[in-house]
Amino acid sequence: MALRMAMVGGGPGSFIGPVHRMAAELDGRIRLVAGVFSRDPAKSAQAAVAWGVAPDRVYPDHHTMFAAERARADGVQLVSVVTPNHLHFDVSAAALKAGLHVISDKPATLNLAEAQALAKVVAASGKQYGLTYTYTGYPMVREAREIVARGDLGAVRKVVVEYSQGWLSTPLERDSANKQASWRADPKQSGVGGCIGDIGVHAFNIAEFITGRRVERLCADVATVVPGRDLDDDCNVLLRFEGGARGVLIASQISAGARNGLTISVYGEKGGLTWSHEDPNILTLDWLDGPSHVLHAGSGYLGPAARAVTRLPTGHPEGFIEAFATIYRDFADAIEGRAGGLVPDIAEGLRGMTFVERAVAASRDDAGWVSLQGEG
Amino acid sequence: MALRMAMVGGGPGSFIGPVHRMAAELDGRIRLVAGVFSRDPAKSAQAAVAWGVAPDRVYPDHHTMFAAERARADGVQLVSVVTPNHLHFDVSAAALKAGLHVISDKPATLNLAEAQALAKVVAASGKQYGLTYTYTGYPMVREAREIVARGDLGAVRKVVVEYSQGWLSTPLERDSANKQASWRADPKQSGVGGCIGDIGVHAFNIAEFITGRRVERLCADVATVVPGRDLDDDCNVLLRFEGGARGVLIASQISAGARNGLTISVYGEKGGLTWSHEDPNILTLDWLDGPSHVLHAGSGYLGPAARAVTRLPTGHPEGFIEAFATIYRDFADAIEGRAGGLVPDIAEGLRGMTFVERAVAASRDDAGWVSLQGEG
Amino acid sequence: MALRMAMVGGGPGSFIGPVHRMAAELDGRIRLVAGVFSRDPAKSAQAAVAWGVAPDRVYPDHHTMFAAERARADGVQLVSVVTPNHLHFDVSAAALKAGLHVISDKPATLNLAEAQALAKVVAASGKQYGLTYTYTGYPMVREAREIVARGDLGAVRKVVVEYSQGWLSTPLERDSANKQASWRADPKQSGVGGCIGDIGVHAFNIAEFITGRRVERLCADVATVVPGRDLDDDCNVLLRFEGGARGVLIASQISAGARNGLTISVYGEKGGLTWSHEDPNILTLDWLDGPSHVLHAGSGYLGPAARAVTRLPTGHPEGFIEAFATIYRDFADAIEGRAGGLVPDIAEGLRGMTFVERAVAASRDDAGWVSLQGEG
Amino acid sequence: MALRMAMVGGGPGSFIGPVHRMAAELDGRIRLVAGVFSRDPAKSAQAAVAWGVAPDRVYPDHHTMFAAERARADGVQLVSVVTPNHLHFDVSAAALKAGLHVISDKPATLNLAEAQALAKVVAASGKQYGLTYTYTGYPMVREAREIVARGDLGAVRKVVVEYSQGWLSTPLERDSANKQASWRADPKQSGVGGCIGDIGVHAFNIAEFITGRRVERLCADVATVVPGRDLDDDCNVLLRFEGGARGVLIASQISAGARNGLTISVYGEKGGLTWSHEDPNILTLDWLDGPSHVLHAGSGYLGPAARAVTRLPTGHPEGFIEAFATIYRDFADAIEGRAGGLVPDIAEGLRGMTFVERAVAASRDDAGWVSLQGEG
Repeated sequence: MALRMAMVGGGPGSFIGPVHRMAAELDGRIRLVAGVFSRDPAKSAQAAVAWGVAPDRVYPDHHTMFAAERARADGVQLVSVVTPNHLHFDVSAAALKAGLHVISDKPATLNLAEAQALAKVVAASGKQYGLTYTYTGYPMVREAREIVARGDLGAVRKVVVEYSQGWLSTPLERDSANKQASWRADPKQSGVGGCIGDIGVHAFNIAEFITGRRVERLCADVATVVPGRDLDDDCNVLLRFEGGARGVLIASQISAGARNGLTISVYGEKGGLTWSHEDPNILTLDWLDGPSHVLHAGSGYLGPAARAVTRLPTGHPEGFIEAFATIYRDFADAIEGRAGGLVPDIAEGLRGMTFVERAVAASRDDAGWVSLQGEG
Repeated sequence: MALRMAMVGGGPGSFIGPVHRMAAELDGRIRLVAGVFSRDPAKSAQAAVAWGVAPDRVYPDHHTMFAAERARADGVQLVSVVTPNHLHFDVSAAALKAGLHVISDKPATLNLAEAQALAKVVAASGKQYGLTYTYTGYPMVREAREIVARGDLGAVRKVVVEYSQGWLSTPLERDSANKQASWRADPKQSGVGGCIGDIGVHAFNIAEFITGRRVERLCADVATVVPGRDLDDDCNVLLRFEGGARGVLIASQISAGARNGLTISVYGEKGGLTWSHEDPNILTLDWLDGPSHVLHAGSGYLGPAARAVTRLPTGHPEGFIEAFATIYRDFADAIEGRAGGLVPDIAEGLRGMTFVERAVAASRDDAGWVSLQGEG
Repeated sequence: MALRMAMVGGGPGSFIGPVHRMAAELDGRIRLVAGVFSRDPAKSAQAAVAWGVAPDRVYPDHHTMFAAERARADGVQLVSVVTPNHLHFDVSAAALKAGLHVISDKPATLNLAEAQALAKVVAASGKQYGLTYTYTGYPMVREAREIVARGDLGAVRKVVVEYSQGWLSTPLERDSANKQASWRADPKQSGVGGCIGDIGVHAFNIAEFITGRRVERLCADVATVVPGRDLDDDCNVLLRFEGGARGVLIASQISAGARNGLTISVYGEKGGLTWSHEDPNILTLDWLDGPSHVLHAGSGYLGPAARAVTRLPTGHPEGFIEAFATIYRDFADAIEGRAGGLVPDIAEGLRGMTFVERAVAASRDDAGWVSLQGEG
Repeated sequence: MALRMAMVGGGPGSFIGPVHRMAAELDGRIRLVAGVFSRDPAKSAQAAVAWGVAPDRVYPDHHTMFAAERARADGVQLVSVVTPNHLHFDVSAAALKAGLHVISDKPATLNLAEAQALAKVVAASGKQYGLTYTYTGYPMVREAREIVARGDLGAVRKVVVEYSQGWLSTPLERDSANKQASWRADPKQSGVGGCIGDIGVHAFNIAEFITGRRVERLCADVATVVPGRDLDDDCNVLLRFEGGARGVLIASQISAGARNGLTISVYGEKGGLTWSHEDPNILTLDWLDGPSHVLHAGSGYLGPAARAVTRLPTGHPEGFIEAFATIYRDFADAIEGRAGGLVPDIAEGLRGMTFVERAVAASRDDAGWVSLQGEG
């Protein structure tokens, strides 16, 4: 039997709402059956029709929904939180307190203080809490993590991670019809980080995910390039990892012409690996001595982590929706008590919020190298 | 309300069954609610559980299913045919006669005679019939077709299409546990074409789809390379299109190391285009004079055909399941009377069967150039 | 001491003349010291100045040159033949008879009869005769040949070789100022082959070079696409190699937008290799089971054949001139009696002429499969 | 008449000496006729034989050579300086004072003070002084510079330049037979910069070359990763350009598996460009709205700067030697008073030395952002 899910947010005009819906249902493990898809009841109803949600399970607000669903024998078991950042804490905490598992879009909350508060709620709830750091759902990212963990590259020495977009090269947020741009550029909805909170955290997360090492210190140049913008749109950060590896993190939304270019290279003593989101089904390994290896998703020679999350034979591309669906499938496993999944949790949420707040503050104060330890 | 679908075939051990299920449901337009997923009732039940199909709608055979579903107020409206080729005709014809729409895996039937018979059933039924020539569901393949139709390349002069796999480089079919290999290598289940019927028809179909021109004549070298194999596993074909363009079609399942490499180049008087399945979200245009253009799926500058079938912003890869889902979405549109979709139909099924039979016969008889006209 | 070379042809307006000059001198093994660079004495003198050839060693015709140089103690030792095809035989034969080594641009002669006659002159002369099939000078092409010879791929089963250009998509040859186009399109200067003689022979040669197997039979579609053109500009050929491998050879000069796209894939029982001229410093190996390998020129792990002809460390691209220079260096080795070089010789010249004549004739007569044996 | 050149350094065991020789002579504008190729007379003589230099023009030291050549009517006109860094100043200054033009491998000198002294010698000499920042010789790098200068991208906002090698991942310098590694790792021969002086300056130079903007400030993490090494082998630097653009410069010789990966992206208001040394004959332009453009070297649609330095038609790869040769050809033009060349000169030498010294010092002192102005 599929798990029953509600969604908060994600209705018409949202990019990520439909992705969550498709991802949650792709593997037949979860069914969307209830929701508050928009503050606007008409839009909420419109989403319900499109997604096959019964009209009587479309609610005016999440408090009402949680109460009503709790009263049903077939009430929802998990909630997907797909609102702008400033609502993440309130919705997630309420859901957990209502006894529901929560899977949330990133970042976890509006700021670090909220993330710390949410961590306590999660701990007290006994429920599962997951964050959709989508890129960790790609098979070849999991293969990369496994390769590093196995020591194939030797000790990690250097990490270069870049996440470049160009879509905020102009002040799109002034066009109120562009919801994607307007809420992201508004500190009240986004928090202190613009680009760094939107995509910088993905780069940070994938670097820690693949290397299995935490960033200990950073030196940041977090900038606002487009005149009049309230939040940062370009970030360049020097990193030091535990164990001594150095790194560079580049995140930008004003790299005009860039699409969604997340690329990471990890170099160890014996070789390096490179994964790029624009060609996600391959992983390249370069060696000090010997031919480069190109690993293809879906191949029998891959490790168990990658093979567990591939749906198709090699040569049949899987993409963003499938990676997203893997996070949901892992979350379903976690709810049902099966081992082996890799759902990013509140600890990674705290790491992300710590990264954003420290980098923004350090850059603003020209503070040079600052520590990332202690709170995340 | 989502359309209600039954599936015949596709249960445990099938590669393509789960793909049909995910593809049909991805956009929320269709729900799988009934099925005969396997001849083995236990396996059939197992698929039903995994896919959320109620136990009372899992049937012992398709005739029983069609009768029972017809009697229900909420009976199925369409049937997905996912069996080996030799059952396609019987299941499809029975479904159409039972008043159900049919969407079938390719090729349409076991042989040309069956395809001709099926065409008559389709015509008499008044129901929709669709074939999942998956590759025509990719946004950049539709963009390619639009570019050619718009005349951007000038008159088409040359087509090179190659579909190379390597997985049948050894006699896998002798391992009875390998269902994928064993039925494909068995003439009784596959028909007269091995590689040419399995993937050659995809190459043929995409060439006609993108160019909008029919192949008029061909000269074929259809071969069996792995000793002891009953059907062909390597095909090289010279083509002549209506309007005079020349072409080459290469299909192989013994190109060791090749994964699922479908690549097509179309050259006109002014420029050429290239699309490759291993990097499906781009389309490259090369011009007689001027920089090459690389078009990226999800971009605002693409034509209406591509934009209509893209789910994500540019830089977010879509893959095989999404392309497959587009065929299903177009089929849902066709059932509901909406215009604009591009579902391959029985006419394309006839073309494919004609291609397979003529190429196999001409190669066997060393017949040189033969006509493809008259029957498809 | 560098070998002393004369050149016939190659003056102002020639593409390939300057390439021969740079290639011959690159490694310091050969110096250009005399020549008949053009029929036009002013142009010939102009080339001499640009290339540092003394004015008194610029001659009105090749007969005069051979006689005069023979009389000098420091006379030339080898002659580079860079004229249009119809002069190859006369110049080459005269040089050989004058006791000079000859290195000639391809094809060897205007037609097969001339090639057969030249073979006799070569044999009688006791001098070295070489043909600049440039692509065999690339390190990764030599690595490919070595990999096949070593049996890494198992027995060869299939070859796909494509050489596509687009520059003759329009009737450039009608512009008399375009020397490159005009002589190539003139049967009196080019012979019976247009595209097939200009670039098809390169594709044919590299296929035989890498596989170490001769083509035994072919079935050809040799066409003239641009109206009014006298020679072919588009060729598609099915191949059968000795030992049973099948192949496809595609050569075109009307693939609009294509630059100089020579690509070859060779598939054996265990894996396949691919080399492409637009990215010549890598060689890709794909395996039935295991990651793909990408070999990079200049790497220490390459075989002796590739390492012998690489001038730079890995990551420093070498290109067309360097590959050309390798042919010249190998030729210098041959003259000086050093072993190990791989200069294409008159036997390969005969193969090329046989290929061109048989393919053109077979296609014209719609002869189906024809033999390539007996004469080349 | 070709210009007559002497070389200091570059004999057996040198990587870059043979490259200078091939590059200087490639276009027939310069001939190597004299030299001090090694301190070891036998090795020096060996190089002379290989390169066709007369025995009587091989000298024991550069002072002797400059005096002797000055006394000849056909004495050398320019000197190529190919020694380790610590000898650059002495040889270059002596040559200039002897009335010879100087073309030197980079960096200009051992340290900034020497570079400043050399700048005065250059100014007083009235002779040409050039530096072989090779990468600026690539046609597509010149096209990139022209595109930025023309304003096609709008104002430059961001630059990411990375130059990653892996060959010093192990302490190769302890193997005394490895001359390439040993002198580079020795501060007395290399100066204060290891990786940053060897390849970081190339990255710095190409960034300023393409953008036409100077770096004003930087914040550097210059590190020694391999234990026991005396100089840096990994450098990560945040940049600020005049006009406000931000940037990141990454240079490493411990990125295991990396070959010679110099890649630069420049983003402006309207689009971005990317050039990569491992595929040097293309330049990619990505736009805020519209297809990406891929420009191919040798194409007629390129700007005058790129077309002036391409030797072959499009599709015929040129590489490292050709780019190097372009610097030499430009230098020959400068000597002969022809306009249009782009030889890096002593001003760029000063910039490079300033970059190295400031970055190393700032990183050592944890100085945060430091200025690059005032001295370079």
